[in-house]
Amino acid sequence: MINKLVKKIKETGAPIVVGLDPMLDYIPEHVQKKAFAEYGDTLEGAAEAIWQFNKEIVDKTYDIIPAVKPQIAMYEQFGVPGLIAFKKTVDYCKKKDLIVIGDIKRGDIGSTSKAYAVGHLGKVKVGGWEYAPFDEDFATVNPYLGSDGVKPFIDVCREEKKGLFILVKTSNPSSGEFQDRLVDDRPLYELVGEKVAQWGTQCMGDDYSYIGAVVGATYPEIGKVLRKVMPKSYILVPGYGAQGGRGKDLAHFFNEDGLGAIVNSSRGIIAAYKQEAYGRFGAENFGDASRAAAEDMILDIRDALAGK
Amino acid sequence: MINKLVKKIKETGAPIVVGLDPMLDYIPEHVQKKAFAEYGDTLEGAAEAIWQFNKEIVDKTYDIIPAVKPQIAMYEQFGVPGLIAFKKTVDYCKKKDLIVIGDIKRGDIGSTSKAYAVGHLGKVKVGGWEYAPFDEDFATVNPYLGSDGVKPFIDVCREEKKGLFILVKTSNPSSGEFQDRLVDDRPLYELVGEKVAQWGTQCMGDDYSYIGAVVGATYPEIGKVLRKVMPKSYILVPGYGAQGGRGKDLAHFFNEDGLGAIVNSSRGIIAAYKQEAYGRFGAENFGDASRAAAEDMILDIRDALAGK
Repeated sequence: MINKLVKKIKETGAPIVVGLDPMLDYIPEHVQKKAFAEYGDTLEGAAEAIWQFNKEIVDKTYDIIPAVKPQIAMYEQFGVPGLIAFKKTVDYCKKKDLIVIGDIKRGDIGSTSKAYAVGHLGKVKVGGWEYAPFDEDFATVNPYLGSDGVKPFIDVCREEKKGLFILVKTSNPSSGEFQDRLVDDRPLYELVGEKVAQWGTQCMGDDYSYIGAVVGATYPEIGKVLRKVMPKSYILVPGYGAQGGRGKDLAHFFNEDGLGAIVNSSRGIIAAYKQEAYGRFGAENFGDASRAAAEDMILDIRDALAGK
Repeated sequence: MINKLVKKIKETGAPIVVGLDPMLDYIPEHVQKKAFAEYGDTLEGAAEAIWQFNKEIVDKTYDIIPAVKPQIAMYEQFGVPGLIAFKKTVDYCKKKDLIVIGDIKRGDIGSTSKAYAVGHLGKVKVGGWEYAPFDEDFATVNPYLGSDGVKPFIDVCREEKKGLFILVKTSNPSSGEFQDRLVDDRPLYELVGEKVAQWGTQCMGDDYSYIGAVVGATYPEIGKVLRKVMPKSYILVPGYGAQGGRGKDLAHFFNEDGLGAIVNSSRGIIAAYKQEAYGRFGAENFGDASRAAAEDMILDIRDALAGK
């Protein structure tokens, strides 16, 4: 799957991923109204609104982007109906040949991580049959529990030809509280990055490992360091746009080959129609606004890489 | 909810929690067969088997225990049908007046943690209505992202009178890889423990805070230290039984008042009928085996506390 991700990034010239994180207040009123008219002001109604919103954005962007990253929390907050919309979104994006990164940030003791790995990336056995319950292509994983919490995910990835992005340095303001603390004079995120690099060398695709890392766009200097610590790991870079990261901050997350990183934008793309820059599209054409925002983001990153 | 937890622990004299982590191979054949006969060898069939298994164990133990802890991964691995069984289990346990600790180990950037908090402990707004999607009483939270990943959970707990157990030192063999690393000459888990104590002082019930911690039974010496670092935090102690923790290791997780800790056993109770000690019950009476195992665990911990 890492080979397919690299191939699609080369084909589109777009090292970006669209974060399908649909808060209800991002969803235009006409979409909500239609869903609520059919299902009532219920969890099912919210799930339908989310699904229709996602579908339109995917339809309007799938040909210019390599991947999407649905954040499962935004679905899980609507309970079981929300998770049905998550699954529908995953399936639809895969049908559109998009790579799906499940932003699930799971991680637990070994036997429990195995259950998550099977549920999201692998297959579960029931009697004489096997099922792929959520079936994303990549998943994000939390490393706090150490190797034996990560290993079951790696095992399933090896078997299924899928991949991971492991949290190393997150994009949020308080990420430094624990991640930046010095251990033997080096910040904890560097130790985690080294572990990711180690795990990754056992899991190589053609040019890159299928064990990648998450490093926030909001910390470009740290990105520069971690790029060197994990030369063969793809870096998933959240925090572009709404969280404050800008194109020119991103160049150092990439390798000299122009590869090695994929930058996520969620709100900046899916709620583009709410921004002044894309207001001309109007709420009715929110999908077109998202496409325009994705195009601008791609250019912004290309410029940043050209100026490197 | 922390007051209710303390009250129920006093009433039952049982500072234990039964981990409802139903792997399919823990479930007796007759239960699986019946479920598969009705729903086929499908995810729905697996979910039905899990639900019937849980129900029997709850029916046979609810009067002697204060709380249960369903591990959501074990349900999530069966996709949406599995999560329906999770929700059914949560609802049923609450109807039996058990306290439900959702072992979800979520944690993300602020806006995302808020969605998890709302989905699991709070209420989500849809149009003019509010829904409590999963509605556990407590949830476990991963602290790797720092304060702003935890705060939304705390906010929802304050509003809903619910609670958290934050991962401090986990029970698995490789937990030390990052958690034990020395920061300013003290292990990272101590810093996390201090944060938990800090967060907790703002969130007091009558005697204990509703912001608790997870510390594994497999590290009794560390438990002793962390007990003092977080005097007002309830400690959820996994790792008893199948993972190797024993009653006599547990005394130091408790305060002098005999309170302050609640010990989890999953496999040791729910799959008790498979153990030699409870084999006499047979697979048909697996619920009775679970009750006997719970009774033995309660005695083991009482002995340990008496000998302190």
